[in-house]
Amino acid sequence: SRTHRIAVVPGDGIGKETVPEGLRVLDAAARRFGFDLKLDHYDWSCETYQKTGRMMPEDGLEQLAQSDSIFLGAVGWPGVPDHISLWGLLIPIRRSFDQYISLRPCKLMPGTKSPLANRGPADIDFYVVRENTEGEYSSSGGRMFPGTEREFVTQDSVFTRHGVDRVLKYAFELAQTRPRKKVTSATKSNGITFTMPYWDERFAEMAKNYPGITTDQFHIDILCAHFVQHPDWFDVVVGSNLFGDILSDLGPAVAGSIGIAPSANINPEKKHPSMFEPVHGSAPDIAGKHICNPIGQIWSGAMMLEHLGEKEAADAILRAIEKLLAEGGPRTRDLGGQAGTADVGRALAEAV
Amino acid sequence: SRTHRIAVVPGDGIGKETVPEGLRVLDAAARRFGFDLKLDHYDWSCETYQKTGRMMPEDGLEQLAQSDSIFLGAVGWPGVPDHISLWGLLIPIRRSFDQYISLRPCKLMPGTKSPLANRGPADIDFYVVRENTEGEYSSSGGRMFPGTEREFVTQDSVFTRHGVDRVLKYAFELAQTRPRKKVTSATKSNGITFTMPYWDERFAEMAKNYPGITTDQFHIDILCAHFVQHPDWFDVVVGSNLFGDILSDLGPAVAGSIGIAPSANINPEKKHPSMFEPVHGSAPDIAGKHICNPIGQIWSGAMMLEHLGEKEAADAILRAIEKLLAEGGPRTRDLGGQAGTADVGRALAEAV
Ligand SMILES: CC(C)[C@H](C(=O)O)[C@@H](O)C(=O)O
Ligand SMILES: CC(C)[C@H](C(=O)O)[C@@H](O)C(=O)O
Repeated sequence: SRTHRIAVVPGDGIGKETVPEGLRVLDAAARRFGFDLKLDHYDWSCETYQKTGRMMPEDGLEQLAQSDSIFLGAVGWPGVPDHISLWGLLIPIRRSFDQYISLRPCKLMPGTKSPLANRGPADIDFYVVRENTEGEYSSSGGRMFPGTEREFVTQDSVFTRHGVDRVLKYAFELAQTRPRKKVTSATKSNGITFTMPYWDERFAEMAKNYPGITTDQFHIDILCAHFVQHPDWFDVVVGSNLFGDILSDLGPAVAGSIGIAPSANINPEKKHPSMFEPVHGSAPDIAGKHICNPIGQIWSGAMMLEHLGEKEAADAILRAIEKLLAEGGPRTRDLGGQAGTADVGRALAEAV
Repeated sequence: SRTHRIAVVPGDGIGKETVPEGLRVLDAAARRFGFDLKLDHYDWSCETYQKTGRMMPEDGLEQLAQSDSIFLGAVGWPGVPDHISLWGLLIPIRRSFDQYISLRPCKLMPGTKSPLANRGPADIDFYVVRENTEGEYSSSGGRMFPGTEREFVTQDSVFTRHGVDRVLKYAFELAQTRPRKKVTSATKSNGITFTMPYWDERFAEMAKNYPGITTDQFHIDILCAHFVQHPDWFDVVVGSNLFGDILSDLGPAVAGSIGIAPSANINPEKKHPSMFEPVHGSAPDIAGKHICNPIGQIWSGAMMLEHLGEKEAADAILRAIEKLLAEGGPRTRDLGGQAGTADVGRALAEAV
């Protein structure tokens, strides 16, 4: 039977509680849909850093490279600065495995509430596709005249044809699988006058290959406003590394799903493993109490299965989540319930 | 008596309808509070461009430099690209008059609705302070290998100590005039690793001068989410040119005030004229119909008077707007009423 090899990295804080529930549901899906998961467990985290001075071993990336996908919990802990924790684990994984797509569904789930007035599940259901390797997150820049009045710092945004075209293509291909078939581009070509006009140019060029897809574009400032005012306008929204980052937090926020939303860091060609992780972080304030919500992790597991070709199993998990939320299944405190993390995991595993 | 010299630039579209109402109310305030306004009218617009090939005459900036403040309607019209209209009028004014502060109130007005559920006027009342001259909007960058597969473009973000410190200082000074005395900084130092850590460094340094002010900071992605989830957390929010741009559209959007919000482009030292304009644009779809809402323009007039030292008059205008909205005075269609643009202007002039 089909076997998928998964690197499991719970990481920090509540990641250690959500990942086991994610695995519980994945395991149920494997049994039901007839495939095998071969798991390799890695306990890399900020604790590892505090003990060894590294977030992962020197050959960490080589170890992960053996897997088909990486199933990650959360990275980050008070006392360990981001440039250590994120840049020692999360960012190197994204970059060395060329996970050039960050994909996040922004979906108002039945039985949950959006912070927006008068919005129901039919109004908020779109994807944000973010470029995940270049753009505004560059390693080119520096500081001059340090410590003086003349001091200044620079950072180059870098947009390559290679990098821009492939993320745009992914967005158009994704839109083709959706009923509304629409792509919205995030730009700022009226203010950022070298890189953003280029982005617009490539967007227009790519659109020519997809005559069946409707397109539009907005400057990032007004686009953020539209997310709040008209979330129903959107289907697939594509943006640069920074704009996609902003929109893929704002999108789940307007959907009221930031605590339960999943995210995928994808290498679409499957030359390298892709990584699946919930949008929420390690949540130090509630870590260790077994009260956190595992749905973001479990939903990330569904995205992972879809990426691995197990579409039916992915759909079954998503349906189970929707049903549990809509029909008043066990809920953790963030959703107004009393259930523990494992109660939710067990209910979903059973439903699958 | 005190005289203020104002350059009046209605610009395009509904700017031509809102500016006269703004002037009507300013005139009422001048009579009531005993100062004079000397107006210089400039009909520069996209029409000017279509006739003359320029948005303003060659010595346009020199003409404006004679004034104490600039009262602007809206710039932009279909058929004239942004890099002509904005970069031929709006941006040169901001830059040559060193209007390094863009200031926008984000305020849920009584009698109007926020798109957020269960939010009232007490929940949304903060300012966004945006750096308005450098940062991500730079003129340094370029393109290599055009037309080939190797093509790429770059744009440098540039943050100077001079530029960063003065906008941070402005934000702290503003917070000192407010009851909550809090400044929130927008950063992204976990991803944009040259410029943003510098911004954080200067923020921490500036905060030392203001021991009475509470501070916090968020990465721009989660900060946008917080605007939606917790608008009540904010008092004064300070950001770079790009982050401030995003937040100063998102802020009015969550406050439900994007159609009526004002904005100020300020040179705090008053070495050069400052510019006051509504947040909304030229609205080609409703231009010429005399149905647009003049409140954004009139509120911008109040900000202008405050800048010119006429605080009492500014307060009177703001109170008149609040009263009209709260007590069911004449409303334009965007607010569910039937009134024309001038009806609202007249009502407010009278109230002042
Ligand atoms: C016109 C455009 C360049 C501008 C900006 O981003 O500065 C606009 O969005 C604004 O906020 O005034
Ligand atoms: C951790 C941080 C650098 C990261 C990013 O901006 O990429 C985070 O915000 C995310 O979206 O995963």
